[in-house]
Amino acid sequence: MPNPTAAILVIGDEVLSGRTREANAYHLAGELTRVGIDLREIRVVPDDHRVIVDALNALRATHTHVFTSGGIGPTHDDITANAVAAAFGVGIDVRDDAREHLQQAIAARGQTVTAEQLRMARIPDGAALIVNELSGAPGFSIGNVHVMAGVPSIFVAMLAAVLPTLEAGTPRLSREVRFEVGESRIAAPLRELADQMPRLSVGSYPFRDGDVRGTNVVVRGTEAALVDEAVARLEALRAAVG
Amino acid sequence: MPNPTAAILVIGDEVLSGRTREANAYHLAGELTRVGIDLREIRVVPDDHRVIVDALNALRATHTHVFTSGGIGPTHDDITANAVAAAFGVGIDVRDDAREHLQQAIAARGQTVTAEQLRMARIPDGAALIVNELSGAPGFSIGNVHVMAGVPSIFVAMLAAVLPTLEAGTPRLSREVRFEVGESRIAAPLRELADQMPRLSVGSYPFRDGDVRGTNVVVRGTEAALVDEAVARLEALRAAVG
Repeated sequence: MPNPTAAILVIGDEVLSGRTREANAYHLAGELTRVGIDLREIRVVPDDHRVIVDALNALRATHTHVFTSGGIGPTHDDITANAVAAAFGVGIDVRDDAREHLQQAIAARGQTVTAEQLRMARIPDGAALIVNELSGAPGFSIGNVHVMAGVPSIFVAMLAAVLPTLEAGTPRLSREVRFEVGESRIAAPLRELADQMPRLSVGSYPFRDGDVRGTNVVVRGTEAALVDEAVARLEALRAAVG
Repeated sequence: MPNPTAAILVIGDEVLSGRTREANAYHLAGELTRVGIDLREIRVVPDDHRVIVDALNALRATHTHVFTSGGIGPTHDDITANAVAAAFGVGIDVRDDAREHLQQAIAARGQTVTAEQLRMARIPDGAALIVNELSGAPGFSIGNVHVMAGVPSIFVAMLAAVLPTLEAGTPRLSREVRFEVGESRIAAPLRELADQMPRLSVGSYPFRDGDVRGTNVVVRGTEAALVDEAVARLEALRAAVG
């Protein structure tokens, strides 16, 4: 059975303007690989209602899971929750359980919830909360869409909460063989290897290390015996091209 | 006149698997902001011909420019040039001018061009070369699509070659005001500011710095007087909430 697939939709003008270096997609990629869910697309869009709605509907129709990052805070530029409700065609309002999480977290800082903060307890109808230790403001899951914070530490905590609830696939094993020759030198045998072992993916990544032009070859697949066989063939190739 | 828009399509299994932290989109974002081209989408897709063709056709129809990163080397997993030719419905073959660039660079290393390396001189019909100092393998522009290397140093060199040839827009000015209060405390006046100054974008980004919960407010726009006015209002707000 093929692995479940996923996409991440990052919402944020600050990434597109070059102000912020996006970090959550990279974290998600590593975590999904670990549990055997294949990340198939990363998409970053601006804080624009129509664009977010269209991207959500395109991605949720074509992937097992969609994760979103960003736009769920208390300010005017936090428009993700509304866009998700619009994409699913459901209502959105402050919900009691979300308000309680928020109140508890804010009471722990000796404060009471303001009207602006209460915006963070607005949850689309039918969604399940994603609660986390770091922030009183919950994320939520609706259908196959998991809506999470853009602040990296909170994104990490929310993903840790939601990932164990998803059906896992077969983890993809990854092994790397380092060649100290340029990739053109090994391109022909790599193509042959990739053709002969179609259940593996064989990636070739050139690097420079001082004066050395080298190539990292990465073999990925779900079957350990095949990955081992490919690595053995690559090591033999490395001995031959020296 | 609105600014030109752009998208970047990053092609690479290695980004989606979490092996590689993508760097070219961040560099592009900063450079485009500097020249007044609005980056509106970042999309990362796997090494999959059909997916690349469909993404290219979607993005080039809706943006002034599309930049691609990755997949133009000499190995079997370098399939971007073929996908670009397919997206435009044109042929692709080794081209004399591209071969000459390649031969010169490889001759400078005391070697001759192999059949595998010659793959990097395959250029879709009608494209213009993007030559660069770092690599003999050229990128190329066809229509509104600019095809560049994934290796970050070469991507940077190719972008430096192609960017001055594109029509620039009005650079977007960006100013940041740092508040040492959480964003909920200033959410209401920020919304008011954003409503009253619709030609600016006002972004609110929470941070923690040790025990301090703070908020960076970023004002962006093409009109210096408006940006200055917004910053003055934010500084007055900061003095008030101090």
